[in-house]
Amino acid sequence: MFPRSPVLFALALALLPAPAGPREDAWDARFRAVPRTDSVRSYLRHLSARPHHLGSAYGLANARWMRDRFAAWGWDAQIERFEVLFPTPRERVVELVAPRPFRARLAEPVMAGDATTAQRAEQLPGYHAYSADGDVTAPLVYVNYGVPADYERLERMGISVKGAIVIARYGGSWRGIKPKVAAEHGAVGTIIYSDPKDDGYFVGDVYPTGPMRPRDGVQRGSVADMPYHPGDPLTPGVGATRDARRLDRKDAKTITRIPVLPVSYADARPLLESLAGRVAPEEWRGALPITYHVGPGPARVHLKVLFDWKLQTIHNVVARIPGREAPDEWVVRGNHHDAWVNGAVDPISGMAAVLEEARALGELLKQGWRPRRTIVYAGWDGEEPGRLGSTEWAETHADELRAKAVAYLNTDSNQRGFLSAGGSHSLERLLNDVAREITDPETGLTVWKRWQLNEIARGTTEARKELRERADLRLDPLGSGSDYTPFLQHLGIASLNLGFGGEGFGSSGVYHSIYDDYRWFTRFGDTTFTYGQALAQLVGSAVIRLADAEVIPYQFRPMHDAASKYAGEVRKLLADRREAAAERNRQLDEGVFAATRDPWQPEADPAREEVPPALDFALLDSALARFGASAVHYDTLAARMRDRPAVRDAAALRELNAKLMATERALTRAEGLPGRPWYRHQIYAPGFYTGYGVKTLPGVREAIEERRWEEARQQIAVLAGVLGDAARAIDDAGAALERL
Amino acid sequence: MFPRSPVLFALALALLPAPAGPREDAWDARFRAVPRTDSVRSYLRHLSARPHHLGSAYGLANARWMRDRFAAWGWDAQIERFEVLFPTPRERVVELVAPRPFRARLAEPVMAGDATTAQRAEQLPGYHAYSADGDVTAPLVYVNYGVPADYERLERMGISVKGAIVIARYGGSWRGIKPKVAAEHGAVGTIIYSDPKDDGYFVGDVYPTGPMRPRDGVQRGSVADMPYHPGDPLTPGVGATRDARRLDRKDAKTITRIPVLPVSYADARPLLESLAGRVAPEEWRGALPITYHVGPGPARVHLKVLFDWKLQTIHNVVARIPGREAPDEWVVRGNHHDAWVNGAVDPISGMAAVLEEARALGELLKQGWRPRRTIVYAGWDGEEPGRLGSTEWAETHADELRAKAVAYLNTDSNQRGFLSAGGSHSLERLLNDVAREITDPETGLTVWKRWQLNEIARGTTEARKELRERADLRLDPLGSGSDYTPFLQHLGIASLNLGFGGEGFGSSGVYHSIYDDYRWFTRFGDTTFTYGQALAQLVGSAVIRLADAEVIPYQFRPMHDAASKYAGEVRKLLADRREAAAERNRQLDEGVFAATRDPWQPEADPAREEVPPALDFALLDSALARFGASAVHYDTLAARMRDRPAVRDAAALRELNAKLMATERALTRAEGLPGRPWYRHQIYAPGFYTGYGVKTLPGVREAIEERRWEEARQQIAVLAGVLGDAARAIDDAGAALERL
Repeated sequence: MFPRSPVLFALALALLPAPAGPREDAWDARFRAVPRTDSVRSYLRHLSARPHHLGSAYGLANARWMRDRFAAWGWDAQIERFEVLFPTPRERVVELVAPRPFRARLAEPVMAGDATTAQRAEQLPGYHAYSADGDVTAPLVYVNYGVPADYERLERMGISVKGAIVIARYGGSWRGIKPKVAAEHGAVGTIIYSDPKDDGYFVGDVYPTGPMRPRDGVQRGSVADMPYHPGDPLTPGVGATRDARRLDRKDAKTITRIPVLPVSYADARPLLESLAGRVAPEEWRGALPITYHVGPGPARVHLKVLFDWKLQTIHNVVARIPGREAPDEWVVRGNHHDAWVNGAVDPISGMAAVLEEARALGELLKQGWRPRRTIVYAGWDGEEPGRLGSTEWAETHADELRAKAVAYLNTDSNQRGFLSAGGSHSLERLLNDVAREITDPETGLTVWKRWQLNEIARGTTEARKELRERADLRLDPLGSGSDYTPFLQHLGIASLNLGFGGEGFGSSGVYHSIYDDYRWFTRFGDTTFTYGQALAQLVGSAVIRLADAEVIPYQFRPMHDAASKYAGEVRKLLADRREAAAERNRQLDEGVFAATRDPWQPEADPAREEVPPALDFALLDSALARFGASAVHYDTLAARMRDRPAVRDAAALRELNAKLMATERALTRAEGLPGRPWYRHQIYAPGFYTGYGVKTLPGVREAIEERRWEEARQQIAVLAGVLGDAARAIDDAGAALERL
Repeated sequence: MFPRSPVLFALALALLPAPAGPREDAWDARFRAVPRTDSVRSYLRHLSARPHHLGSAYGLANARWMRDRFAAWGWDAQIERFEVLFPTPRERVVELVAPRPFRARLAEPVMAGDATTAQRAEQLPGYHAYSADGDVTAPLVYVNYGVPADYERLERMGISVKGAIVIARYGGSWRGIKPKVAAEHGAVGTIIYSDPKDDGYFVGDVYPTGPMRPRDGVQRGSVADMPYHPGDPLTPGVGATRDARRLDRKDAKTITRIPVLPVSYADARPLLESLAGRVAPEEWRGALPITYHVGPGPARVHLKVLFDWKLQTIHNVVARIPGREAPDEWVVRGNHHDAWVNGAVDPISGMAAVLEEARALGELLKQGWRPRRTIVYAGWDGEEPGRLGSTEWAETHADELRAKAVAYLNTDSNQRGFLSAGGSHSLERLLNDVAREITDPETGLTVWKRWQLNEIARGTTEARKELRERADLRLDPLGSGSDYTPFLQHLGIASLNLGFGGEGFGSSGVYHSIYDDYRWFTRFGDTTFTYGQALAQLVGSAVIRLADAEVIPYQFRPMHDAASKYAGEVRKLLADRREAAAERNRQLDEGVFAATRDPWQPEADPAREEVPPALDFALLDSALARFGASAVHYDTLAARMRDRPAVRDAAALRELNAKLMATERALTRAEGLPGRPWYRHQIYAPGFYTGYGVKTLPGVREAIEERRWEEARQQIAVLAGVLGDAARAIDDAGAALERL
């Protein structure tokens, strides 16, 4: 039996054999020779040639074209349809009614020399999907990023947004958080603009000279309350099939409570310039050549936005290569194909890699390869408005996926630069191994090495030490922002989200605008398509290894390592909150705030805050120790097995792999997270008040952040229970492995 | 005998009696009732009514007016004259010659509603005093703040400024560092501009709506190499009397090697906008609505500046109240009276307080008060071009001052807000005691309490602990920036520099421009003159205590505490440099820089750096322990003496006070600091590459910073010697005290 005490367990960790080197595998090496930059270029050029948002003619044409490509490469390919709510705007007005009239243009001009930008009839205008209808006129208040901390600051300044329209800049959180928090504070409308500080001329030259956002560029996007649930607002938790039971729109919880519209910085400037009142705090100020004021007054704004609230058809492309030995074990791979406009970067740079992988796997089929498991490739529709295609598909096939899915591998935008890898930590070793096999196109280093050196360059002293000593690089935990969410966080399928980026200026300046197109991409993006090629090599290699390994290549020590790290963070979060509250109260007693505020700029004392209670983490500690012991036990057995001859009993193997698939499922609870049952994973979730930003151990962490102490205590027990279940699932897998 | 070992010494410190409460003193309490805001207002209005730079008619009129006021209040007042080099511009040109013509306006427009700004005939234009003559045309390069680290960054980008004109923004160092470092790197000219990020619209509304710098506002200033020596460039180290031996101008070391001119942000924008090449690093970018590029090219600039290199007469106002018991012990108090233009804030807000103190002391004289020591009040001329009036006076009277000066108390600009107090740590207790007696006008707290609470609000956890537990607040060490420099750093006279500020936006936006005038001051500055009144109360109280105390009220434990703290910092500096060099070299070996730079934006590896040697600080440690024991011994004796009856032997008292004056002198060396003999103080100096910014333990610290290891070793020994001398001087004073 393996030691269960923390001390013996730590000792055992130290005694384990060093991790083995990269696996040699003829098929994945052959695979890597196939992807070509020319092919990636041709897919990208074709798919981004015209606007192809959900419901567009070109979007459907793209789906059919991709289906036909898959079929031509030897895949079993189909289009799967769903019917989802997808509002598009009928009327949009943003105008200043005082102190002087100004009407926002709300349009992105055609860029000379970039013909794609002239496809006006097919372009969706700048708007926010799932904003409520609204027609309001009210004083304007500038709220910085519009996150909860910004409203605390406003409150101290004595400024209320009740009955006001707020103007927030993009950044600091996912955009959908802004109208949600504004509404919670009583605002009647929200305008979100792109400040040149964040993705315009402050950062670099603007398009067409450089890659950054031009003055009239607008960031479209979804504002559905996806931290509550993604997917069709009318069919939470179930597939939006034609005959699904639908909510009344008024009962849909993910549509905003107040109207919201995005504007460019050219349109925002007259609004911001008309604000008086307090000068905005320094960290709130952007790069417009004005003094930023908070308001309210004298600016009054009229905001009107009305939608066509229609159902629209999702066209997911789903293609399969059936597995030879284990057809009921699936490796699922996806990227979305819908864009806000032409979307050369987002999403076609990733979709093109998916297609090139598919072509290359087709080549292997011709060479006689047959994967052990079934491979499912998907091009999702409707990701932009709310992960619609992936969510509805995952909800529709939930039972089958829970039974069969080995892993889900996602990509989205892809650019020059460094590997960015997030996902389930059971896949950490696999991903590190694959990253060591791929060459970075511009430096000739392995992708893994460049990733490591970049982390070293950016790391603290402590982080550098780990980066140099740890065999593998850590995967980032996943929040949200792309199609992995239903697979990982709703169904508990081990997932990866991969892509290159972070070089130069990136694509933030054309994100969700009409300027994200082929011309931009071939001047400022992955101009030679080598990173598209590298992405295809990387993800395809991972797919082949996952599909062909007899035993699913999970490792559980990295999962334990990650969970322990997050538990430490949560503990520190509470300790820091306790210390901060005590210090704040002490400063209130000392009169620090009264003594240091400018008497000309009255500012209220912050609220006295009860010092958070200490919480008992013993249950969590015990569960983590138990989980760690199980993880070490399994990984040790699995490492030993690698040296034994590869003749197995097929049924025993099937049983083992089924038990392995159950391990990530064990990290979910059917009840979901407190207040948002759709999110079932207990280790990773998007933050309720950050949007895309991840919250690890979300049940415990968010209860502490929101000062719900009783819930925090309950969630510690819940989490300990889940970790115990996962440890048992790993033990089961270990037992099955020993029986092989 | 007092314990000399560190451990016993620390024990002794812990056993010392708690510091005594504020001293009751009828005369300084009576004094504090006299100052009136109306008087302060009337001085300020009068003195700032017309431009009054060095050599101006109104400057001379102000000197005479002040002399007459002093005389009317019962002081013995005179004007003392010196003849100094003071260049003013004959011709100034900044123009873009490529890629398009643009000629900078180089003028500050009259502001409607502020008649003072229309006194054009008397205003000095925007220029830099002690710039070299020059007429150059060259490519332009943007160098951020133009400090050494910025040139390291440029070098890594592959950009040389050899033969170029550099444009630097104000900030990051004292302005005179910018042309000095530019010339060291081969530049042929320097333009310095005020970025709106630093003191313009980014910070707050601009004048006349708000207090910040308007688009055409220019910061004048000196660029003499004052970290080498302040004062007249032609008479280093000696008074610039009419018949003094003068250097040839070509041999003057403090005149810049290349021409330099300041410009507004309206004038800078077309220059910066015409730069191409690399986008400037993020932290280099200001708040102009442009993408900041580094250049060089295509911008070519013509910079021409020619001066009248004439001698000009300094008019220092010097007034005395002779001491009754100790006429040869002087308490010296000063503020400058010259401005760049009208200078309501700089320097009249401080000068007005000096005058109000003088009036109030005159009132005490009428009530029968006669100070024990001589009080010397001064209004310095020519501070702006280079601390000319104070330096030449101090150099002329050096021997007498070394023999007689008990302390020098300086003020300069004064505004609403918090006390800012720097100086010799022997005066730390005195200043803390006085600050506890003064009421902050806007909060009603004591000035001391508001100061403490402000430090708590801004402090780290560690700093807050000390702030709450230590009896006194620490004085800031003094670098340079006002007239204390010759007294403290050249002559070794215990000094204080005091002022209020830090509330709201401050005066940085009109600093050294025509807009620093009465209208601005009465709208945005110390509008009700209550902080002028408080400053007079504070400094006057300190003057009275210093003038009347039988035993000069120095304490040496704070001096030991400060020196020990600085020694710890210097040690940490070396350790950090060692660690940083080792880490950098390791990253070079690992290829971190090559792997992480953008291949499209080539960037050289940083230079490999020899890891600094460990240095032996044992001599310094021993000397500090010795010094600490002497300090504790003296302070303990002095505290005991306070309880004994006040009948003393006059000669013994004189001897004791002479020995006390010698203690700060003992911290100086006749040889001065390495490479800059004028600076003699071994604890405090302005930084050779920071300008105003202080370097404590400068001999050791700057040797480490500049990687001169042999010099660092020598300077450790030198510093240990100086601390030993100071300890002996304190012991001598202690012995004299015991003989009382």
